[in-house]
Amino acid sequence: MRIVVANVNTTGSVTEAIRQQAVKAAAPGTEIVAVTPEFGPASVECNFESYLSAVAVMDRLQAVEAPFDAVVLAGFGEHGKEGVAELLDKPVVDITEAAAHMACLLGRRFSVVTSLKRTRGQIHDRLQLIGLASRCASVRATEMTVLDLEDDLERTGERVVEEVTWAVEADGADVICLGCAGMAGVAEGVQAEVGVPVVDGVTAGVALAESLVRLGLSTSKVGSWAPPPPKTITGWPISRR
Amino acid sequence: MRIVVANVNTTGSVTEAIRQQAVKAAAPGTEIVAVTPEFGPASVECNFESYLSAVAVMDRLQAVEAPFDAVVLAGFGEHGKEGVAELLDKPVVDITEAAAHMACLLGRRFSVVTSLKRTRGQIHDRLQLIGLASRCASVRATEMTVLDLEDDLERTGERVVEEVTWAVEADGADVICLGCAGMAGVAEGVQAEVGVPVVDGVTAGVALAESLVRLGLSTSKVGSWAPPPPKTITGWPISRR
Amino acid sequence: MRIVVANVNTTGSVTEAIRQQAVKAAAPGTEIVAVTPEFGPASVECNFESYLSAVAVMDRLQAVEAPFDAVVLAGFGEHGKEGVAELLDKPVVDITEAAAHMACLLGRRFSVVTSLKRTRGQIHDRLQLIGLASRCASVRATEMTVLDLEDDLERTGERVVEEVTWAVEADGADVICLGCAGMAGVAEGVQAEVGVPVVDGVTAGVALAESLVRLGLSTSKVGSWAPPPPKTITGWPISRR
Amino acid sequence: MRIVVANVNTTGSVTEAIRQQAVKAAAPGTEIVAVTPEFGPASVECNFESYLSAVAVMDRLQAVEAPFDAVVLAGFGEHGKEGVAELLDKPVVDITEAAAHMACLLGRRFSVVTSLKRTRGQIHDRLQLIGLASRCASVRATEMTVLDLEDDLERTGERVVEEVTWAVEADGADVICLGCAGMAGVAEGVQAEVGVPVVDGVTAGVALAESLVRLGLSTSKVGSWAPPPPKTITGWPISRR
Amino acid sequence: MRIVVANVNTTGSVTEAIRQQAVKAAAPGTEIVAVTPEFGPASVECNFESYLSAVAVMDRLQAVEAPFDAVVLAGFGEHGKEGVAELLDKPVVDITEAAAHMACLLGRRFSVVTSLKRTRGQIHDRLQLIGLASRCASVRATEMTVLDLEDDLERTGERVVEEVTWAVEADGADVICLGCAGMAGVAEGVQAEVGVPVVDGVTAGVALAESLVRLGLSTSKVGSWAPPPPKTITGWPISRR
Amino acid sequence: MRIVVANVNTTGSVTEAIRQQAVKAAAPGTEIVAVTPEFGPASVECNFESYLSAVAVMDRLQAVEAPFDAVVLAGFGEHGKEGVAELLDKPVVDITEAAAHMACLLGRRFSVVTSLKRTRGQIHDRLQLIGLASRCASVRATEMTVLDLEDDLERTGERVVEEVTWAVEADGADVICLGCAGMAGVAEGVQAEVGVPVVDGVTAGVALAESLVRLGLSTSKVGSWAPPPPKTITGWPISRR
Repeated sequence: MRIVVANVNTTGSVTEAIRQQAVKAAAPGTEIVAVTPEFGPASVECNFESYLSAVAVMDRLQAVEAPFDAVVLAGFGEHGKEGVAELLDKPVVDITEAAAHMACLLGRRFSVVTSLKRTRGQIHDRLQLIGLASRCASVRATEMTVLDLEDDLERTGERVVEEVTWAVEADGADVICLGCAGMAGVAEGVQAEVGVPVVDGVTAGVALAESLVRLGLSTSKVGSWAPPPPKTITGWPISRR
Repeated sequence: MRIVVANVNTTGSVTEAIRQQAVKAAAPGTEIVAVTPEFGPASVECNFESYLSAVAVMDRLQAVEAPFDAVVLAGFGEHGKEGVAELLDKPVVDITEAAAHMACLLGRRFSVVTSLKRTRGQIHDRLQLIGLASRCASVRATEMTVLDLEDDLERTGERVVEEVTWAVEADGADVICLGCAGMAGVAEGVQAEVGVPVVDGVTAGVALAESLVRLGLSTSKVGSWAPPPPKTITGWPISRR
Repeated sequence: MRIVVANVNTTGSVTEAIRQQAVKAAAPGTEIVAVTPEFGPASVECNFESYLSAVAVMDRLQAVEAPFDAVVLAGFGEHGKEGVAELLDKPVVDITEAAAHMACLLGRRFSVVTSLKRTRGQIHDRLQLIGLASRCASVRATEMTVLDLEDDLERTGERVVEEVTWAVEADGADVICLGCAGMAGVAEGVQAEVGVPVVDGVTAGVALAESLVRLGLSTSKVGSWAPPPPKTITGWPISRR
Repeated sequence: MRIVVANVNTTGSVTEAIRQQAVKAAAPGTEIVAVTPEFGPASVECNFESYLSAVAVMDRLQAVEAPFDAVVLAGFGEHGKEGVAELLDKPVVDITEAAAHMACLLGRRFSVVTSLKRTRGQIHDRLQLIGLASRCASVRATEMTVLDLEDDLERTGERVVEEVTWAVEADGADVICLGCAGMAGVAEGVQAEVGVPVVDGVTAGVALAESLVRLGLSTSKVGSWAPPPPKTITGWPISRR
Repeated sequence: MRIVVANVNTTGSVTEAIRQQAVKAAAPGTEIVAVTPEFGPASVECNFESYLSAVAVMDRLQAVEAPFDAVVLAGFGEHGKEGVAELLDKPVVDITEAAAHMACLLGRRFSVVTSLKRTRGQIHDRLQLIGLASRCASVRATEMTVLDLEDDLERTGERVVEEVTWAVEADGADVICLGCAGMAGVAEGVQAEVGVPVVDGVTAGVALAESLVRLGLSTSKVGSWAPPPPKTITGWPISRR
Repeated sequence: MRIVVANVNTTGSVTEAIRQQAVKAAAPGTEIVAVTPEFGPASVECNFESYLSAVAVMDRLQAVEAPFDAVVLAGFGEHGKEGVAELLDKPVVDITEAAAHMACLLGRRFSVVTSLKRTRGQIHDRLQLIGLASRCASVRATEMTVLDLEDDLERTGERVVEEVTWAVEADGADVICLGCAGMAGVAEGVQAEVGVPVVDGVTAGVALAESLVRLGLSTSKVGSWAPPPPKTITGWPISRR
């Protein structure tokens, strides 16, 4: 089985960190192919960047030549899942939904710990659309940028532990979702230190993608996510203009 | 006052139809500037196209050189408002929200009549995020494409009247929102024929944009829609690559 | 265009303050007619008073002889809109809905700052019925009475700034709605001081009423807000008994 | 124990029918005092009438001289409960809430069968505010007026049976609430014929009011429904002007 | 009239306390029969225990030989109501729903004060299913166990007063529901001390059960709560194995 | 890895069918242990049976002697998950949640096709508690009993295809969840015939349980689902009395 894991930003070191995380979660026999968009922001921390990166990921996926079995979209709280789901005839798993659905199996309420405060609303909107806002106790921010989170894992771990503690004590969370692909490296440490399940979206996404493939399930093509109707699209794909 | 009205597709005749509609609604002294994206789909009828056109609109707005006072995004049910709101320091009104908020002043429940069935879910999602799904009695589809709707206004009028009648009789709608910028030309005729208020998003959007400017109100910059943080963005704006 | 702005209490100085605010917002050529109910409370700060003033406003509007194009109901969080909408064949805009709908164009969540704590529940109920409770971050009270708010604008401004700051910092509000017609005078000052958009219901209501008139839209008469069925009504209108 | 049952319209025969229904439900030793407003509509079938009758009921209750222990407001889906609750220091039970809360004890979902279609939205709003809209399967209308319902009990029974059957078969209702005080006389017959529990608001209201009195419970005075603040109220009570 | 009040735990002194509370609330002529399950936990403080006690209560009710008119299930926030409702052809009132529905008549929002923090989620789930979560301001815990609450009424009273005060001041509650049958003894004292209505589920349950019987209403048998289909059930009733 | 799959009824042939389905879904190296409760109903089709079987499953799981890594509860729409989650320190996956969460990855809305109409409310309640009711387009019943569904797979397939077609055409479902463990055998056939993804809870549950084990995730023990407090429990486990 081959799973494409798409970083949503253009920073190669983040792609590599995501790839390693994905490999760790993959079953024997699963090949992970990590890709980086050809354009877009170095990190995604607002709606403008999120929309741009959604299109950049769609563009990048058009250029994947080798056959693959599923896609994992590795941007937490970002746009694009429905669009990619329309474009492909393979299962598409977004790490926001992957983490949130997995967390729901483990407790009554989960909290998300993410990068900047300004992204909390966007994350909440995604949770509302996938139906799981009522299971979400809170979205908490470390106020570290995406690139800082990935760069300084020690400080990341400390800040995440602080926010997780608040989430459990004050917000009533039973489970934590790491709200940024760049945080993946701290999941185990935080879980060990605080004693609550910590779900990382990338590993959850890989496991769910593998499950769908094994169960013979893929995106429904009868309704909202049917293939785009054939028509003139100027300048698409963008990276081949 | 100068208001930029952004068509979301690349079809010039649709831009012109939207422009005329906007001019009709504008107060004396308001100048309407209609723009067309430089890339993207000829019409927007699915999530993939919607995301792409959202970015194409953001790209196109970066290229507007003359000063303007507000922007109207003329794609019903499409993505992008939050991103444009971050990029600009002027009020940004999306015609989905414009039509829905206006409709709420006129009755207890509104229905949307749109182009293709497949877009209903996407429209419902936008209404849910802006909080007005509970005011929406139904989203009904004419099953005409966006370009057909704009092309054959007579048949458009007939189909809209049919669906409006169902919306009022079966779904309990008091008010109708036209769910496609290309339908704008039939609003008055339908309203006269069926006897329910028919809200067109483009005209509603222009009126709301003018109101915000006159009241000295613009997008909040303290929270979710603050300006994007400064950072490297590869290949942006796209049309200037 | 002539717009009737109805104060909901019997205090003439409040009517005059509302009138001035409305005039400021009106487009050139719009005439503002401010009216005061002939009976009811000197200020409206509870449900009993709100119901009484709703009827007093309906009564007062029956006595307006000159033709008019729209009505603005200038009581924040008060009852009556649906009843007035049934009685008249002109657009009716309530300042609660006007402020809330306008605020939604400017940010993700708004907070209301109002007079007394006890009125918060009533305001929340109105927001729930118009569908916008999910966009409301909080309803905060200055604990100043309606008449004190209108009387001592300096202290009003200080208290509003305090609560606005809490709303932004603690509740996650991006936008503020002033929750009392008597606060209108402080909108600009607070907006300048705190740097968040501050929406005053009276000016928003006038702008929306003008927009509806210009767009040829009025209350739907096919459903919930159809004219009252003809029947014997004892002692009505009350002021003509 | 003495319970005041307030008709919301000015039609004496409706007051008498409500009184008889209330007496039937009352425990031994409970005295029923039925009152009719001194002004307002002959029947209540829209929002304007509902607001007016709410105030007329408040006015009428001010004139009750003998001491009483609780009040039942006998208008289904009408406004006013919160206002009356503020004015009195005795328990106040509205028949909408009485019927809905009782119905919830008896099954998973209830339907309301009411008079005119146009009142359905108003009823739904009341259920939403008391929290029970999610327990409501449907609000169905007989399209008979309030006075016809009370006048022709045979036809009322037939029409109610028809709508109850639809509610059970098509809407998934387990329990029925009669949505008009004038329907009370058919409750037993319908229940016997269709075999589903039929809750009449007047009898439910009397039973709940008695229960509250016996348990020593009354309206909370600490929050939303505290007594109105002392102030000048012009022309109140209205019937004593 | 004979009402069976079922304790949900196996502790005889709790059954006796509940019985006394029920007797106090019962109308003249109502006989209270209090029963204790033959197996299960000494107190119910988690989901496992709640499920077990639900079945133990169903088992115990099968063994009640004398005819009875209604059942009150005296476990706050516990499972089982729908199952008992299916098994019996008499009204079944759960004290969670009894307290919550009664509280809704008395104010805009109620808070629950219960035993252990861990039970708050379970109580919230029950309120969500009965539709009243939106009326619930908060669920607060004394962090005293069920048996301690019943054992040391003085300390119980003190802790309840503390949490009630927080509920009113910080959470906006108008009314309090005692969230544990063992707390019943402190209702009057707390109400007197804090000045907010305090609803005890056992007394509310008895009053509602009596009301249903008197009004000739019982569980609907047409839908969700119809009698169980006839079939082989191994080892049932459990206590007769 | 060893996964215990618990049938919720006492019918051995159903356990065997579930076991085969689970084995089919299991990864190489995963051992499936299927267990049958020692008491309870031959099939579960109402709340009473569901509560009883929940306890019977808890009882049966206490008797599993060999170590295992996770549990799958194979009753669709049944009670018990939270109780089992408290009792065990391994991941517990209920097939209702497994199917629903998986379905959400594949489309915008799913429908459930189940056995008897009377179980629809119970299924809806479970979906509401796990947060996914808003993703559920409808719950449809074949009106075949659980044992008939498992017994006559051909007729089951036909009836499921009929209801799936309605779900897609009339209710707007993109994805189907089979709402009964006994239907598992028809999933592939229906998916092939109708062309929409069909999710079977047992296979979804096994895949999710394996994923959790592989990712090192288990039930949170800090909040709602902490281990039951130590205390006297009379007659437990029931099968060892």
